[in-house]
Amino acid sequence: MKQLKVIKIGGQLIDDKANLEAFLRDLATLTGLKILVHGGGTLATKLAKRLGIPVKMKDGRRITNKETLALTTMVYAGDINKTIVAKLQANNCNAMGLSGTDANTILAKKRLIDEIDYGYVGDVKCINTKTIDLLLKNDITPVFCAITHNGEGQLLNTNADTIAAELAVAFAKTYQTNLYYCFEKSGVLRNINDNSSIINHINLKDYNELINKGIITKGMLPKTTNCFYALNNKVHKVCIGNTDMLFKPSQPHTTLTI
Amino acid sequence: MKQLKVIKIGGQLIDDKANLEAFLRDLATLTGLKILVHGGGTLATKLAKRLGIPVKMKDGRRITNKETLALTTMVYAGDINKTIVAKLQANNCNAMGLSGTDANTILAKKRLIDEIDYGYVGDVKCINTKTIDLLLKNDITPVFCAITHNGEGQLLNTNADTIAAELAVAFAKTYQTNLYYCFEKSGVLRNINDNSSIINHINLKDYNELINKGIITKGMLPKTTNCFYALNNKVHKVCIGNTDMLFKPSQPHTTLTI
Repeated sequence: MKQLKVIKIGGQLIDDKANLEAFLRDLATLTGLKILVHGGGTLATKLAKRLGIPVKMKDGRRITNKETLALTTMVYAGDINKTIVAKLQANNCNAMGLSGTDANTILAKKRLIDEIDYGYVGDVKCINTKTIDLLLKNDITPVFCAITHNGEGQLLNTNADTIAAELAVAFAKTYQTNLYYCFEKSGVLRNINDNSSIINHINLKDYNELINKGIITKGMLPKTTNCFYALNNKVHKVCIGNTDMLFKPSQPHTTLTI
Repeated sequence: MKQLKVIKIGGQLIDDKANLEAFLRDLATLTGLKILVHGGGTLATKLAKRLGIPVKMKDGRRITNKETLALTTMVYAGDINKTIVAKLQANNCNAMGLSGTDANTILAKKRLIDEIDYGYVGDVKCINTKTIDLLLKNDITPVFCAITHNGEGQLLNTNADTIAAELAVAFAKTYQTNLYYCFEKSGVLRNINDNSSIINHINLKDYNELINKGIITKGMLPKTTNCFYALNNKVHKVCIGNTDMLFKPSQPHTTLTI
């Protein structure tokens, strides 16, 4: 079975231009099939402030009214996505930027209003692997931003971690798929203030203990939920850490298993 | 020889959302291979004003500093491109949004500083037809915005009319290619204030006369230059008019020939 790497980048890695460029240079050298998924960093929030658009977040998720949707589409699908693609192209990686509406690759459903109305926020309904696979088979590296659509003409803001997990799951039938969540820390930390306190390995039993002990909490909780969702759906391997883990496998990071 | 339609839309058609939606509904029904190229309308200028970024134009071309490039990339490749693609998808047209950096489809060269420094403005150097053709052969409709790259990591703002002409020329060897410039007027007008004064047919001889008489002038001059460039490079047919000409060929419009 051929290997496929699904790599999610976000947070400070997107905001720090020099760091991002160095990573993209390395990524271009990574052999084998790969899909990159990127978040938005703090650029959307900065632009919202300049435009006087109020920023409302709930559990790390952006409450997205019409104006915020246009803004996030501009920042994620426009500026960040095309900047990343141009840098990969400059390093001889044949990247192609995509949102979920492009070739209907990621269909989502507007989140139902429960206690909170998230607005134009979508949860992934289905990944259409056909076109993405056509690109992979033609040596093209898909670069996904976190904008999807509902198939009825509505764009939706979607969590980039979830998109990465859903892409990995969708391709787990046809490829041996590894999912990498890259961020500024070196892995899941036992002590959030100590970057060397990496938990090297987490299985499902450890996971429940770490939640109970309050070690996995806040922003790390939805990320690890995505990890176990992927592992429970035939994704071969899931890792959390900084981008070094992609290029130097001996670099400390967290590997999750079931 | 199979037919291919390259359709450029711009101006008021982009700004008027209801009008744009109606056009995209019709476009989705248009059979045969097609590529859509869109301009940016006045959205980029409006956003620049909101952000307090000065807007500088020279002969209808935007002088593009670093901040303006980020802004046009956001508006063209982000908001407008993805909105168009989502609406086409909703009408069962399998559209895919692209900038020239995506899969290195359009390589451009930063315009040299002559009398004016246009900044990050690029002139098309080459169209890489391979991936675009792969999409066409898989029933995908490419939707191009007017952002390209120089292959060295730099995005460039590029004229959408020129992109349309270059795409038509690049495919003229493999398809019988028709190029359509759609805008708010019904064609090239003898009297700019009279929308019924359409010149139905312009050949190269007429063209020079119309320039000498000052009938073809200003914004229409680069557009018609693109038309004759296309015709001189094996493009089968070039038309200028409103979008009706695509769906009702008897609708008055301007056809150019050499």
